[in-house]
Amino acid sequence: MNTFGYAAYSTDSPLAPYTFERRELRPDDVALEILYCGVCHSDLHTARNDWGMSYYPIVPGHEIVGRVIETGTQVTGFKAGDYVAVGCMVDSCRECDQCRKGDEQLCRQGPIYTYSGHDRISGEPTQGGYAKHLVVSEAFCLHMPEGLDLAKAAPLLCAGITTYSPLRTWNVGSGSRVGVIGLGGLGHMAVKLAVGLGAEVTVLSRSADKRADALALGAARLLVSADEGAMAEAAGSFDLIIDTVPAKHDLDPYLPLLDVDGTLVIVGQLGPMSDFSTVPLLSGRRRVAGSPIGGIRETQELLDFCAKKNILPDCEMIRMDQINEAFERMEKADVRYRFVIDMASLSAAAA
Amino acid sequence: MNTFGYAAYSTDSPLAPYTFERRELRPDDVALEILYCGVCHSDLHTARNDWGMSYYPIVPGHEIVGRVIETGTQVTGFKAGDYVAVGCMVDSCRECDQCRKGDEQLCRQGPIYTYSGHDRISGEPTQGGYAKHLVVSEAFCLHMPEGLDLAKAAPLLCAGITTYSPLRTWNVGSGSRVGVIGLGGLGHMAVKLAVGLGAEVTVLSRSADKRADALALGAARLLVSADEGAMAEAAGSFDLIIDTVPAKHDLDPYLPLLDVDGTLVIVGQLGPMSDFSTVPLLSGRRRVAGSPIGGIRETQELLDFCAKKNILPDCEMIRMDQINEAFERMEKADVRYRFVIDMASLSAAAA
Repeated sequence: MNTFGYAAYSTDSPLAPYTFERRELRPDDVALEILYCGVCHSDLHTARNDWGMSYYPIVPGHEIVGRVIETGTQVTGFKAGDYVAVGCMVDSCRECDQCRKGDEQLCRQGPIYTYSGHDRISGEPTQGGYAKHLVVSEAFCLHMPEGLDLAKAAPLLCAGITTYSPLRTWNVGSGSRVGVIGLGGLGHMAVKLAVGLGAEVTVLSRSADKRADALALGAARLLVSADEGAMAEAAGSFDLIIDTVPAKHDLDPYLPLLDVDGTLVIVGQLGPMSDFSTVPLLSGRRRVAGSPIGGIRETQELLDFCAKKNILPDCEMIRMDQINEAFERMEKADVRYRFVIDMASLSAAAA
Repeated sequence: MNTFGYAAYSTDSPLAPYTFERRELRPDDVALEILYCGVCHSDLHTARNDWGMSYYPIVPGHEIVGRVIETGTQVTGFKAGDYVAVGCMVDSCRECDQCRKGDEQLCRQGPIYTYSGHDRISGEPTQGGYAKHLVVSEAFCLHMPEGLDLAKAAPLLCAGITTYSPLRTWNVGSGSRVGVIGLGGLGHMAVKLAVGLGAEVTVLSRSADKRADALALGAARLLVSADEGAMAEAAGSFDLIIDTVPAKHDLDPYLPLLDVDGTLVIVGQLGPMSDFSTVPLLSGRRRVAGSPIGGIRETQELLDFCAKKNILPDCEMIRMDQINEAFERMEKADVRYRFVIDMASLSAAAA
């Protein structure tokens, strides 16, 4: 299937129009017309090959909402016209213990990512959602529930599930005391989702500037991490802290905030983290963990949960040809809180 | 009660004889004659005031085995002649949630340590087990079970419980795959106790020198951490790793060894730890934790477990006047695996 989108052509060139082929439908595939695609920091990392896994041209985008236009001969779960979503993975081995229990993101072979991956059968490079069409196995396609705003739902597929999954892994519910470090794409979703699950949420921020925003998102309070008195007073007061900061940083100010047996989960930084003191870990049996996206079943659960609770990301809609400007603004954290590309802005003529 | 022992008189002087007073028995106190006391690295840290909590003179020692010689008027659990043990704590608030559930080591007020602490009632500095007598509340006194070799049991009170507690917290049992980093006082106990609980144990060591020792302790194998091929092959193969290394070190070689949702528990290093990569944490939802000693109920459970399973530390018996030499050898890791002071070697004349 011939389609078109925007691709990075090298580590340092702006994204530009790109015409390319999607595979012909296999029996279990669905083809979709992409309606919206969220803009994730990973897209930028990949365009620049920050993680050394990129090839060129590469089409980023893994927060994909679309409409089914064709189905393979053996597809049973979808039909043309269905509204659907695709996230960070398009396949996995499907046979290992992790896949069998629905944790495809932890597949023993490694999941096949929506971009910067290689198709498990043909070996061809995968290309993401900054495009008009996508072909994906129905096993990695999600149903958009009734009532969920299609235009705003896209960021749930990465920013949403990346924060929802640890909230579920660590059993956050009514009465849980949750801290959220960083109030960007991931952080603002962590606040909304934890509040939706019944938690009392505190945003941890370097300054008080974001207090009004934090409260508007549903947080009970904002704690200024530079305020040593307030931090000392908050010692031992969190069951779980979701750390969304996407850069190397210092964990020492945050670890004492955890209660006994509490966990700080890193979801934002994939790479080096500063040295740290083990004292708060030993003295309070505290833990530091990491968590990657979530499985397909859990992602569907998230979409259904958000529809039921009316939880949606705060989005700024852009045209496809604004993507390079959006990347620049994202780098300066100048977005509240996630860019979403309206794919109606992408025409064959432009590509 | 007048008694005598060995104390540090300053940060840099050798331990020397010291005559001092133990408190008069309170109604819930027991007085014991100390028979054996293990030598822990914490004793040396405290003698030198490495943790900034010392006062002088200070009597170290928190792996204490003795015999009850007198009981307070309201003591119900002990009588003169009973063989007993005292570990790292001699009191706690006894009222907080942690104390109520038997985790006195995690007391909200902080436990009162056997030395370098202050008595909760009188405020006087606590003095440890390098001495002829000890007075302690019966609530912090343990029963030595029948059949446990008194001379060798002392190190269970710190090295033992420090490794047993995380094995129990993380539910190690039959079939668990446990790694142990470092084969000193704590490490050799971790191996014996994990094997006793039914785990398959691997010792992780920088060289193959300790292979025979590791196997003799019950380990299934020794994995040389400098062997990159063997380390890569062992990726994802541990449920729990007990890290007993008592110095700042690099966690990066070890984290990929954990299976999905596996935990590396730090028990040896109380202080700075090197920077690390979050990649193995995020990619495998792995965790890093700390764990401090254990509660009184759990320590009694450990003693009973060791008696039942005939698990004992490997000890080298020394006289009280050999303590300074023992400190020197301990610093060079020249002990297999724990010094124990035979307190019969301590006479009033020497003190």
